[in-house]
Amino acid sequence: MHHSPSPDLNLQVRLACRPKGRPVLADFQFTSEPLPIPADGQLLVRHEWLSLDPYMRGRMADTPSYAPPLELGAVMLGGTVGVVQASKHSNYAPGDLVLGMGGWQAYSLADAQGPAAPLKLERSEVPAFAYLGALGMPGITAWYGLTQLLRLSPGQTLLVSGATGAVGSVVGQLARARGLRAVGLAGGAHKCAHAVQQLGYEACVDYRDGPDAMLQGLRQACPDGVQGIFENVGGALLDAALQLASPHARIALCGAMAGYNGEPIPLAAPQLLLTKRIGLQGFIITEHLPLWPQARQELLALWRQGQLQQHSTIVDGLEQAPEAFIGMLQGQHLGKLLVRLT
Amino acid sequence: MHHSPSPDLNLQVRLACRPKGRPVLADFQFTSEPLPIPADGQLLVRHEWLSLDPYMRGRMADTPSYAPPLELGAVMLGGTVGVVQASKHSNYAPGDLVLGMGGWQAYSLADAQGPAAPLKLERSEVPAFAYLGALGMPGITAWYGLTQLLRLSPGQTLLVSGATGAVGSVVGQLARARGLRAVGLAGGAHKCAHAVQQLGYEACVDYRDGPDAMLQGLRQACPDGVQGIFENVGGALLDAALQLASPHARIALCGAMAGYNGEPIPLAAPQLLLTKRIGLQGFIITEHLPLWPQARQELLALWRQGQLQQHSTIVDGLEQAPEAFIGMLQGQHLGKLLVRLT
Repeated sequence: MHHSPSPDLNLQVRLACRPKGRPVLADFQFTSEPLPIPADGQLLVRHEWLSLDPYMRGRMADTPSYAPPLELGAVMLGGTVGVVQASKHSNYAPGDLVLGMGGWQAYSLADAQGPAAPLKLERSEVPAFAYLGALGMPGITAWYGLTQLLRLSPGQTLLVSGATGAVGSVVGQLARARGLRAVGLAGGAHKCAHAVQQLGYEACVDYRDGPDAMLQGLRQACPDGVQGIFENVGGALLDAALQLASPHARIALCGAMAGYNGEPIPLAAPQLLLTKRIGLQGFIITEHLPLWPQARQELLALWRQGQLQQHSTIVDGLEQAPEAFIGMLQGQHLGKLLVRLT
Repeated sequence: MHHSPSPDLNLQVRLACRPKGRPVLADFQFTSEPLPIPADGQLLVRHEWLSLDPYMRGRMADTPSYAPPLELGAVMLGGTVGVVQASKHSNYAPGDLVLGMGGWQAYSLADAQGPAAPLKLERSEVPAFAYLGALGMPGITAWYGLTQLLRLSPGQTLLVSGATGAVGSVVGQLARARGLRAVGLAGGAHKCAHAVQQLGYEACVDYRDGPDAMLQGLRQACPDGVQGIFENVGGALLDAALQLASPHARIALCGAMAGYNGEPIPLAAPQLLLTKRIGLQGFIITEHLPLWPQARQELLALWRQGQLQQHSTIVDGLEQAPEAFIGMLQGQHLGKLLVRLT
């Protein structure tokens, strides 16, 4: 199989500066390059969808974390769904739909073998971009925290911060499917209404009302306390969650959006972890790859039963990616943030 | 079996006031009463040893916690070893040595049946007071955290705050017996030397040297990071422990001495729980009673192999109990604090 030469250029978004606090547009740089040519064992993918996710903020910094920082000048990393344009490996043919980590660019090269080989997707009733959302990393994250860490029983109450985000929007749906009472925390009346009307939450409390009103709202929404906490935000929201936690509650610590720009976010009352005998587990979903096929299968089954939907905000054109990403870190969007490449 | 009337009075220490911050002597009140007379199914125990433990500070307060507060005017609660003086139940005879929750008093009545029935102790080579320490609640606490929660492999590093306290002094010995590298945190050069020379710690860092020196000392003592944390203190010590923690480290959260007087002790960098994918479990050993017989058996076996000793500070006379208790909360003593009743 030969690659098809193309007159196109490959538009790319690169890390220009390490952000100080909130990222700004100047932290990103646009470049254009000739299309790369796949070597033996490689394929060229034309991206149709790019996923924008909070974890990327961590990779822009050079503070020590679970993954090495992105090099300055490197193409921003990110999950992509695209179409094989040229292939030099028999496992892939032009026209194949694939999920990979192509990054913030119009095209990427990928190795056809090894751990980073793109996943071939069937063209089915499922829209391709759902493999970046409810059926992809965010959905698997929700599934893992709920089924592997929290393991609640029907009727128990689950508190979810970032309830309308990429992960939270799946947690709510999975919780409802499992007979749990999911209560959300989100920023703004519009998001809270969406959580209850669309995502399966029993109730959703607006943290923008301030700490006292938030706590009061949570007490009303959780008369039997909270037996599980799916934590995506941290900071004042985790403080409130600990106040509501029942003895022996479990916490799946999935994200800490409140601190992603580097500001300190102390936990006000860690002694509650002791007095309430709480179990907490931080996790990073890419460390649990062996469970991904099972997770995808269960998520797909729920999708086919009509119990799981994709809720997204879609922006058009790679040119919009930096601004959309900056907005996401400020909580501007509903659901999974996706870039449609045009 | 009839009780033997006695001309003695029963000296008691009662909760006079709820402490504001550090307890003071005026928070305790001494009273004397005629000896109580056991009813059918009860026994009268003359106490030889009283255990003083940090958890009692929590029961003096009326803030919500895992156990109801002590009533104002009630006899202070506490574990005791004593001799049966009179018995109205066939399971016990005068002269039996028993472990119970007799409280801060010279004598107590106990029910011979039910969950609070005193445990009959064999008179053996083991000193009776060890059943309040290394073979009692503190020892079982150490055993539970180490074997049921942390589950480290030989050669891994365990960080223990309050290393020379009632629990920490057993954690060090158990860790050595299991081939772990235990590193302690304690207050003062004398305690640190004791930890290394007597308790099986590889190294012990003095937190009184200040946060920077503590962190530096820990980095030297833990070149491969820390895979398990046995946390008795909280506050700045837990902050430091999180800095040292390796990815996937586990934390057994057993105590939070730093905050027992009600001051807020925020956790500086809870996001490390996420970025390091840490698992944390708060626990209260009295919720795990079914495991106590197994724990005692294993601790006793180690004792008989010479791998476990009792390290105590002993004060004489119930009159000394309040002052000794106040001093314990300020970290004044080495090992298990015991009152010998005279």
